[in-house]
Amino acid sequence: MLTELLDMAGVAVFAISGALAAARARQTIVTFAFFAAVTGVGGGTLRDLLIGAPVFWVGRSDYLGVSLVAAAAVWLIRAERWPLAALLWFDAIGMAAYAVIGADKALGYGLPALPAIVMGVLTASFGGIIRDVLAGEPSILLRPEIYVSAAALGATVHVGAVFLGAPLPLAAGLGVAAGFTLRALAIARGLKLPGYGRD
Amino acid sequence: MLTELLDMAGVAVFAISGALAAARARQTIVTFAFFAAVTGVGGGTLRDLLIGAPVFWVGRSDYLGVSLVAAAAVWLIRAERWPLAALLWFDAIGMAAYAVIGADKALGYGLPALPAIVMGVLTASFGGIIRDVLAGEPSILLRPEIYVSAAALGATVHVGAVFLGAPLPLAAGLGVAAGFTLRALAIARGLKLPGYGRD
Amino acid sequence: MLTELLDMAGVAVFAISGALAAARARQTIVTFAFFAAVTGVGGGTLRDLLIGAPVFWVGRSDYLGVSLVAAAAVWLIRAERWPLAALLWFDAIGMAAYAVIGADKALGYGLPALPAIVMGVLTASFGGIIRDVLAGEPSILLRPEIYVSAAALGATVHVGAVFLGAPLPLAAGLGVAAGFTLRALAIARGLKLPGYGRD
Repeated sequence: MLTELLDMAGVAVFAISGALAAARARQTIVTFAFFAAVTGVGGGTLRDLLIGAPVFWVGRSDYLGVSLVAAAAVWLIRAERWPLAALLWFDAIGMAAYAVIGADKALGYGLPALPAIVMGVLTASFGGIIRDVLAGEPSILLRPEIYVSAAALGATVHVGAVFLGAPLPLAAGLGVAAGFTLRALAIARGLKLPGYGRD
Repeated sequence: MLTELLDMAGVAVFAISGALAAARARQTIVTFAFFAAVTGVGGGTLRDLLIGAPVFWVGRSDYLGVSLVAAAAVWLIRAERWPLAALLWFDAIGMAAYAVIGADKALGYGLPALPAIVMGVLTASFGGIIRDVLAGEPSILLRPEIYVSAAALGATVHVGAVFLGAPLPLAAGLGVAAGFTLRALAIARGLKLPGYGRD
Repeated sequence: MLTELLDMAGVAVFAISGALAAARARQTIVTFAFFAAVTGVGGGTLRDLLIGAPVFWVGRSDYLGVSLVAAAAVWLIRAERWPLAALLWFDAIGMAAYAVIGADKALGYGLPALPAIVMGVLTASFGGIIRDVLAGEPSILLRPEIYVSAAALGATVHVGAVFLGAPLPLAAGLGVAAGFTLRALAIARGLKLPGYGRD
């Protein structure tokens, strides 16, 4: 129940970031809807295909519906008026939650620790990667800003805590907190990773 | 039987559009074959992966064969001599048919209306999206010209008619006609969607 | 056993090429790891999704582990000191082996000859395609240099030999030799394919 709510909130936050990318590119309402849906459900879709699970949004209407409502909201409310900081912080919460949800679902399908962590990272980042490739922008992967690293930290802490025997809510809470904190330092303090040959 | 013929015609038409993209980029025969196959079967492949169906072209040779013949035909006949209008109209028929075929297959797998419509849109448009990303061209998604919207309309009309109890041939005919008509208006009259912040 | 070793060597070689692409783009350690993993396992992942097999690296840690070690090695040893020729030749071996392994796995799942050959080509080339799209570089598909053609030749020779009744090691050896030889001619002699309208 809490998982479903978190899941839905994550789809909504990522869908909004996709619609905002469409707004920045002065796109049409159809592109808004497509970018919102792809960014909202993209990461979880790849995870489910890879672990052999039924794709989570396919048999139901609510996940797609949330994405379409997010796209319509961004279209109707002028993006110029949205505080970018609010989006970054919502996105940070969504990313941290998704990294843990993705890794946990992978553990539930019997994956070992390393692939489960990778699934958490993919769930948290793949939607944004597809969005950037489709929009012809440089992928978030190519930016030095810490993002994927925060997802990896969150998923690792969660999987590690589960393997150490922590109860699920504690493990998930620690994972979300770790991923969110690292991402928050990147947003608030400009924490970056050094590029190759530049250190 | 009719479905198989429509399906094969759709693969052929989309494969030709992929090969023409390779011709525009002055590519080699191998790129022709790859672009033709990806564009021809790409949309249906994504649909089948998402709904958990066996991928339609994998267990047989005819769909790939049709794509390769299309690539060879475009290579052998100089593209400069092809009337572009003919391609656009063939492509419009293929798009409208694919949107309905994709949505109908999704309904057959028990999907609710909204995801079924999305599957129709993906089947009709994803091949072209991959083609454009691979070729480094702006995706059809980013153009204001009505394309994805026409696929969405066709799939929606078909799914709506099925839910209202219409017999399959009628529902499919209405869906194809609706999608084709909207796309035809875009080709013949330059019908476009307004971009964000430009209206 | 030999197959597993070849498979692991192929993942390692492709992972190194992914990490080297990250090094060329002056990327961070996280991008190194991501590019290495995507390039290392990408082709086999697409193949497994398409033929309905469990994705080969998901239930275990070793394939991802090899990719991460490859990324760390490229990060720690300065890429400027690596002889590019060595990479090209290793990559040629990996490509030839992967084309045969991919086609052979597809035959084992009951695919006819043409789709099996396509699976060999995808296994050998898709990792590099995703890597190039993510890095914003022109895809290997768009270069006139012979690469995909060599994979197609290797897969075709293998499948042809199997259909003619050759024992598996002979068929695989012929396929790898054919693919490697054609690629070697491209590397050593600059063998290229003519572009459309340029011949």
